[in-house]
Amino acid sequence: MAPKWQDLVAAKQQECKEKIPLEWRINTEHPALTETPRLIEADIPRRSGLLSDTELDITENYTASQLLVRLATGHISSLDVTTAFCKRAAIAQQLTSCLTETFFPQALERAQYLDEYLQREGKPTGPLHGLPISLKDSFCVEGVQSTVGYVEFLKNLKNGPATTNSALVKMLLQLGAVLYVKTNIPQTMMTGDSENNIFGRTLNPHNTRLAAGGSSGGEGALVAFRGSILGVGTDIAGSIRIPALCCGVYGFKPTTNRVPFGGQVSGAKEGIPGLVPSAGPLAHSIADLKLFMNLVVGDGHAWRYDSSAVAVPWNSVPRDLSEKTSLTIGVLAEDKNFPLHPPVKRALDCAVEALTRAGHRIVRLGEDLDVAYPSRLAFQYFIYGPHDDLIAASGEPAVASVAKAASPMFTGPFPVQCELGPFETIQALYEARQKLSDLWREAWVEHNLDVVLAPGSQNTAVGHDTYGWPPYTTMWNVLDYPACIIPFSKASKQLDPNAMATLDDVQPDYHPDEVDGAPCAVQVIAPYFQDEKCLWAAEIIDRILREYGNLWV
Amino acid sequence: MAPKWQDLVAAKQQECKEKIPLEWRINTEHPALTETPRLIEADIPRRSGLLSDTELDITENYTASQLLVRLATGHISSLDVTTAFCKRAAIAQQLTSCLTETFFPQALERAQYLDEYLQREGKPTGPLHGLPISLKDSFCVEGVQSTVGYVEFLKNLKNGPATTNSALVKMLLQLGAVLYVKTNIPQTMMTGDSENNIFGRTLNPHNTRLAAGGSSGGEGALVAFRGSILGVGTDIAGSIRIPALCCGVYGFKPTTNRVPFGGQVSGAKEGIPGLVPSAGPLAHSIADLKLFMNLVVGDGHAWRYDSSAVAVPWNSVPRDLSEKTSLTIGVLAEDKNFPLHPPVKRALDCAVEALTRAGHRIVRLGEDLDVAYPSRLAFQYFIYGPHDDLIAASGEPAVASVAKAASPMFTGPFPVQCELGPFETIQALYEARQKLSDLWREAWVEHNLDVVLAPGSQNTAVGHDTYGWPPYTTMWNVLDYPACIIPFSKASKQLDPNAMATLDDVQPDYHPDEVDGAPCAVQVIAPYFQDEKCLWAAEIIDRILREYGNLWV
Repeated sequence: MAPKWQDLVAAKQQECKEKIPLEWRINTEHPALTETPRLIEADIPRRSGLLSDTELDITENYTASQLLVRLATGHISSLDVTTAFCKRAAIAQQLTSCLTETFFPQALERAQYLDEYLQREGKPTGPLHGLPISLKDSFCVEGVQSTVGYVEFLKNLKNGPATTNSALVKMLLQLGAVLYVKTNIPQTMMTGDSENNIFGRTLNPHNTRLAAGGSSGGEGALVAFRGSILGVGTDIAGSIRIPALCCGVYGFKPTTNRVPFGGQVSGAKEGIPGLVPSAGPLAHSIADLKLFMNLVVGDGHAWRYDSSAVAVPWNSVPRDLSEKTSLTIGVLAEDKNFPLHPPVKRALDCAVEALTRAGHRIVRLGEDLDVAYPSRLAFQYFIYGPHDDLIAASGEPAVASVAKAASPMFTGPFPVQCELGPFETIQALYEARQKLSDLWREAWVEHNLDVVLAPGSQNTAVGHDTYGWPPYTTMWNVLDYPACIIPFSKASKQLDPNAMATLDDVQPDYHPDEVDGAPCAVQVIAPYFQDEKCLWAAEIIDRILREYGNLWV
Repeated sequence: MAPKWQDLVAAKQQECKEKIPLEWRINTEHPALTETPRLIEADIPRRSGLLSDTELDITENYTASQLLVRLATGHISSLDVTTAFCKRAAIAQQLTSCLTETFFPQALERAQYLDEYLQREGKPTGPLHGLPISLKDSFCVEGVQSTVGYVEFLKNLKNGPATTNSALVKMLLQLGAVLYVKTNIPQTMMTGDSENNIFGRTLNPHNTRLAAGGSSGGEGALVAFRGSILGVGTDIAGSIRIPALCCGVYGFKPTTNRVPFGGQVSGAKEGIPGLVPSAGPLAHSIADLKLFMNLVVGDGHAWRYDSSAVAVPWNSVPRDLSEKTSLTIGVLAEDKNFPLHPPVKRALDCAVEALTRAGHRIVRLGEDLDVAYPSRLAFQYFIYGPHDDLIAASGEPAVASVAKAASPMFTGPFPVQCELGPFETIQALYEARQKLSDLWREAWVEHNLDVVLAPGSQNTAVGHDTYGWPPYTTMWNVLDYPACIIPFSKASKQLDPNAMATLDDVQPDYHPDEVDGAPCAVQVIAPYFQDEKCLWAAEIIDRILREYGNLWV
């Protein structure tokens, strides 16, 4: 008789738990842990008593680039850095359920190997020498399972420990990185709540009563907790950017196929025309996002690891652009179908004010460049064609956010007739998407835009299972435009005291008390394949927002 | 009552004929024209008596780059250059039917405008200032019809004169080019014989008894005749490279979407997954192919004109590569299903010998990297899904090469089961293609290849309507690898006196007498998106072949 799904899960959970060394386990009766859901504000990592001063220093006071310089010059050992992040990730896991798989012993062994290599050879193994990097669960690491939260994949023998590394994993190892954990995702990887029946629900470390976002929610929580200095997520509708904005970290969704995506596990059918996911970094600064892109894209070497990856180098921004003193920034119009929560609106308004003061040219984009239509187009792409029901396959139930099945279809009709045959549907969807791309391209050229500034979402992190449909991220996946989340400002019940109800049963309402203190963010977008320009402009904008934030917010 | 298709065609033919000025018309009784089908060898353009010495000089003694320098500095006027190429194109048309639409008066008017601009402003309008460029019929030029040889498109009102320029046409005009003719193609644009019921059959100027190739056959013939210094074709299975190799000129098929393709007319359904066509240049030298790519791709500005175009600059080849003194060149194995005609084999062998002597490393690729399987995969992609019958629509008959419908299916089974539903077929084709891409990528990395050297076809230009299926070009479209044709050597009944029969009813036989003197060629291929490397290596290889050719062939 086949085991029940609950038994499979229980065994897996036990296995995962046992992989956390006893000496890294939190005293669950520690008073600090019960006093507040605001783990970051309450400085729980320090107060857990598990991290040494050196470990706190390593995990809190450096950018990835700074750590890399110290690692490459032997001023700090990979073993120390890896130990610090393993421990901090273990703490994060115990408080937020942000991890799926941990492989601390292998990570520490590799760190030791890299330290010995540096000592022996007098040079680092590569530009990521010794740096721990976290990965979304969908990436395959040899010897580690990739269930992406499906019980079906847990029981299926072919989803035992991976026998080969994903393309990006090969590259990261080649570049000298240390891998140590994989991070949690929602069942289906298609909701803003990173919950599944195997690994549970990821909590937001800023406030555990709020969602961490999804689908790379584990990454968002882990990076925010500083259990990772640099993490990798994937994004087909916002799955890098939603956790970034919910957890107050930086996140970048590149144009598809610039970062090698191949060799991941998912429940999706590849090859059917539709939105294509893209892998990208979550980090603590634009500089670290750029570091990742610069090393992974590099001279275009990703093609050696992944047949779909374009052999396009990470180009420097042209001189006439880099010498520009004033950017032309289009500001996306608020879509009345997806009204912005007051803190989100305030953050965006402040950003526009700061950029204007800094001398940049602001162009208010028209309502013809709306959010609802591309959302509906994305939704139709997501639901057309065949889908395997990987939930029913094992008998596990759908988690709440999946059962809820948020959709943008309250905003208007399907862009393409629903009764067409398969080929006619594919062609009609293609034409609708081309038309949308043309509309945006023409607007971009007409206004001579450098980048677009937009909200990343109509809301901040919200209560569990209330995130809804993500229109402000999804639209850029439809266009395949690179997009970057910059954390900026925070929700405040003092500044925005009035609740706001949405009446569509899809989007979350604004509850000033509930989200008080949650991070806010803005999104910076550039056209298809202009990833370099997107991050270049995001860095300029981020600097202005930091300065402005220090003065005014 | 609707007019008969024959009447529509007769009217169109009359219209086209009348556009050739009387003073540019050839005396059809001129003895030179009847003495030999070898127009180029017999120097017919000169002997026609229609071109002045200056016009012969302009059309024969310069590369496009050289003409551009003279144009930009005012050493030669665009009016003179344009007149020379218009006249020579008109002669080519009368002898080879290589043109569809001519717009000489508009071209001369624009040339005059550009000359005046240069004189007035003291600088050229752009880097292609004043240079005439020819275009395949599928490109749209405002005020000019785009029928691509379908009578249905001739009668259909929406295919009257184009009201907007194709994306590439906009760019070329922006860069300063002069457009003057569009060139002939086969009905369906899917055969190696550029014949249709509107514009007739394009003849090969090297030997009018041979086909000019297709589908950009008019470009091949026109460029070979030096009625164009730089032409643009499109290629989904060899449509740039086949005319190039048949007509003894250089041709480059870039990776898709590097050159903007948008806004062309075709009978194909866009958006259904399959092979994607790519626009690229035909010219008299690698330098001119590079010139085209360098200017059109440039800093990646094509995205401003075409939503599908990638905003990737034309990157310089990395220094570690450009300083390499020895290339590693993989040589594609001859596929026993598509045996090489003796002159083609000789040209390839000579090339390998020349490259070996010059110190380059040759890697003989295995038979697992075959030609037949990707051909069958391409064929299955071409035939699956819905197709509009644009021939039957008007009542015109299929031309011979279309009626023949060459296919590679004598070499083995369909790669994907034929009875699958639409989505299952799409997914299975995708997986087959991915697997093939992986196979090639792994071979490339394993052997550390720079480029692959291969025949462009199993045969040279052959008798009309015998070209057959083009496996040696199509396979690189399946992989979306950039590929360049370098003309090298000629068929010779002295050197290869023995006929060779193929027994499959698809491929042409080798008839030493028939093809004697026809151009031979080799093909240089680089991986997906490595267009810069492809042309960089092609230039090195071409230089060696020129030197070797002068010595030995």
